[in-house]
Amino acid sequence: MSDRDFMQHALQLAARGRFTTSPNPNVGCVIVKDGAIIGEGFHQKAGEGHAEVHALREAGTAAKGATAYVTLEPCSHYGRTPPCCDALIAAGITRVVAAMQDPNPQVAGRGLHRLREAGIEVEFGLLAQEAESLNRGFLKRMRTGFPWVQLKMAASLDGRTAMANGESQWITSAAARQDVQQFRAQSSAILTTSQTVLADNPQMNVRWSQLDADTQALIGEASQLRQPLRVVLDRHRQVSDNAALFMPGAQTWRAVVQPSEQINAWDKELVLPEHHGYIDLVALMMTLGQQQINTVWVEAGATLAGQLLHAGVVDELILYTAPKLLGSDARSLCQLPGIEHLSQAMEFEINDIRQIGRDLRLILQPIAASV
Amino acid sequence: MSDRDFMQHALQLAARGRFTTSPNPNVGCVIVKDGAIIGEGFHQKAGEGHAEVHALREAGTAAKGATAYVTLEPCSHYGRTPPCCDALIAAGITRVVAAMQDPNPQVAGRGLHRLREAGIEVEFGLLAQEAESLNRGFLKRMRTGFPWVQLKMAASLDGRTAMANGESQWITSAAARQDVQQFRAQSSAILTTSQTVLADNPQMNVRWSQLDADTQALIGEASQLRQPLRVVLDRHRQVSDNAALFMPGAQTWRAVVQPSEQINAWDKELVLPEHHGYIDLVALMMTLGQQQINTVWVEAGATLAGQLLHAGVVDELILYTAPKLLGSDARSLCQLPGIEHLSQAMEFEINDIRQIGRDLRLILQPIAASV
Repeated sequence: MSDRDFMQHALQLAARGRFTTSPNPNVGCVIVKDGAIIGEGFHQKAGEGHAEVHALREAGTAAKGATAYVTLEPCSHYGRTPPCCDALIAAGITRVVAAMQDPNPQVAGRGLHRLREAGIEVEFGLLAQEAESLNRGFLKRMRTGFPWVQLKMAASLDGRTAMANGESQWITSAAARQDVQQFRAQSSAILTTSQTVLADNPQMNVRWSQLDADTQALIGEASQLRQPLRVVLDRHRQVSDNAALFMPGAQTWRAVVQPSEQINAWDKELVLPEHHGYIDLVALMMTLGQQQINTVWVEAGATLAGQLLHAGVVDELILYTAPKLLGSDARSLCQLPGIEHLSQAMEFEINDIRQIGRDLRLILQPIAASV
Repeated sequence: MSDRDFMQHALQLAARGRFTTSPNPNVGCVIVKDGAIIGEGFHQKAGEGHAEVHALREAGTAAKGATAYVTLEPCSHYGRTPPCCDALIAAGITRVVAAMQDPNPQVAGRGLHRLREAGIEVEFGLLAQEAESLNRGFLKRMRTGFPWVQLKMAASLDGRTAMANGESQWITSAAARQDVQQFRAQSSAILTTSQTVLADNPQMNVRWSQLDADTQALIGEASQLRQPLRVVLDRHRQVSDNAALFMPGAQTWRAVVQPSEQINAWDKELVLPEHHGYIDLVALMMTLGQQQINTVWVEAGATLAGQLLHAGVVDELILYTAPKLLGSDARSLCQLPGIEHLSQAMEFEINDIRQIGRDLRLILQPIAASV
């Protein structure tokens, strides 16, 4: 097995934490000596052991003279756990291969520097792109302060989301809705609007029974399921305290423009500036980033979708397309006022195409905000 | 090599005729003796030799005692060429494996019967599904009298085809437009409307330079290119004689509801009944079938698209999706009046998903006419 194979394995380990590590990054570690894996581990949950610690524990004294493959630069600071660099040095590791540097300002090269100073041979950049895609949210937040924002949409072939009378449940199939559960489960927060809450009274949570068997196996049991934070844009305070959204074990925040006297069922209230008569979505995202939200999964209607795209804060569009035609009287996917010419169209790149049950799922990345 | 491998090869040969055989079917033939191919051929052009004749000629006297693999039941009637059954019998073929029976009422089992009567061992049904998809148009016409109708559409992610002001060239990329050329080149006829002709003044032809290298190699040279018939719905006779549509080497027909005194630049006029104030599209398709049109490729606007779908005459929807959002003010993909409830939505099955350049191409099959 080559360096590449070991790193690939470390990446697979890291991915096992993707439902649970938020707000921490997913990290995997493999310890190799004489071409054989003698220890491996991954980060499972904030506050619990880092990947390197698990792997070193498994390797034991055999770690002396071994190589450590890590998917992210080992930390050099005291957080909720002691620095991994120290553990690697103490264990007698003589070579460290990191997929990428950690842009976290508390690390940012200091980890690798410290290892080098201790006489360890250090390399980085192996499978960096794969490591990058493992932690889109964490990395974006560390670099920019903003979370990674995924906008979920579902429509017919002719881009319709509901009938003229509002009838909309369900355009896409059960398989697509189950797929959405996988995304929700990996997100730090779900963003929606009071309109959506009032219209559908959704729970906006992750349901254990709807996760696929692999995911269930990863998480272990229903009680270990991490419920993402729910954030509702509710400037007019229209959501009542008995909405299905409020439930034990999951936080629900309200975003408003004027502070409230009481927040009642809400766990927190974010008071945000206004922008053109709407909650300032850039300020919202920045605030969520400050709150250690790595990834935001948006499920809402055509108006918020259009506003988010217009504000340029969307990193990925996840579009479920039901193979149906609803006709031109039905409701539109996206409100994008101000587009009058083709040259002003909002353009995307297709990153992934997949059939989900009877439906199609596209993952698209905005190319440049052209409006 | 097995029976299956030889038939697979015969199917590949048959496919080589797909740009040229109309109105005849695509047929391939492989002659095998002692496990080796001793002759092969395919049907290239109506009026020219059938696949069996080419293959037998190549095999020569070695055909005695050989097996013939044919993708369609050999013909038993005198058409523009003598019956292939007779040729197979005369050559001393002792076993014939046909992928499927020919539903052509002039054949329809009589070919296989005749071979059996001559003492030849006859089998059929091997790779029948593949053989079926090779000749969708011909087979549908033989079975029902109707051509195979492919409706081409192009839209943005939000199902828009043009801006509110009509601006529409080009929503999809050059790669998608080149892909359309491949479909046109395989079609017996292209159907459009006077509205489209007046708006864009299209040539609606196949351009040699836009065909891919494989297709060019198959056809041989530009002069061998078969131009599909163009049929324009022009009941109000709005298309002028100097439209770009009229060109040497390609037929252009007009569909109307009242016969004209003169047809001027048109090669033919189809006088059709009216249905709810529109040209009767079912009658149109039946007429095209009678005119030996196997496949109809439709390129038109939202109105004709909706009417064809509504009439239930569409066999396949070929939808090019540009990864763009045009917003809700832009023009709709499809006019489908009368759909008020989700349960009335027109449903499709996704048969093929492909990325074409920057765009996406879906091939969809209507599940059932629900409106």
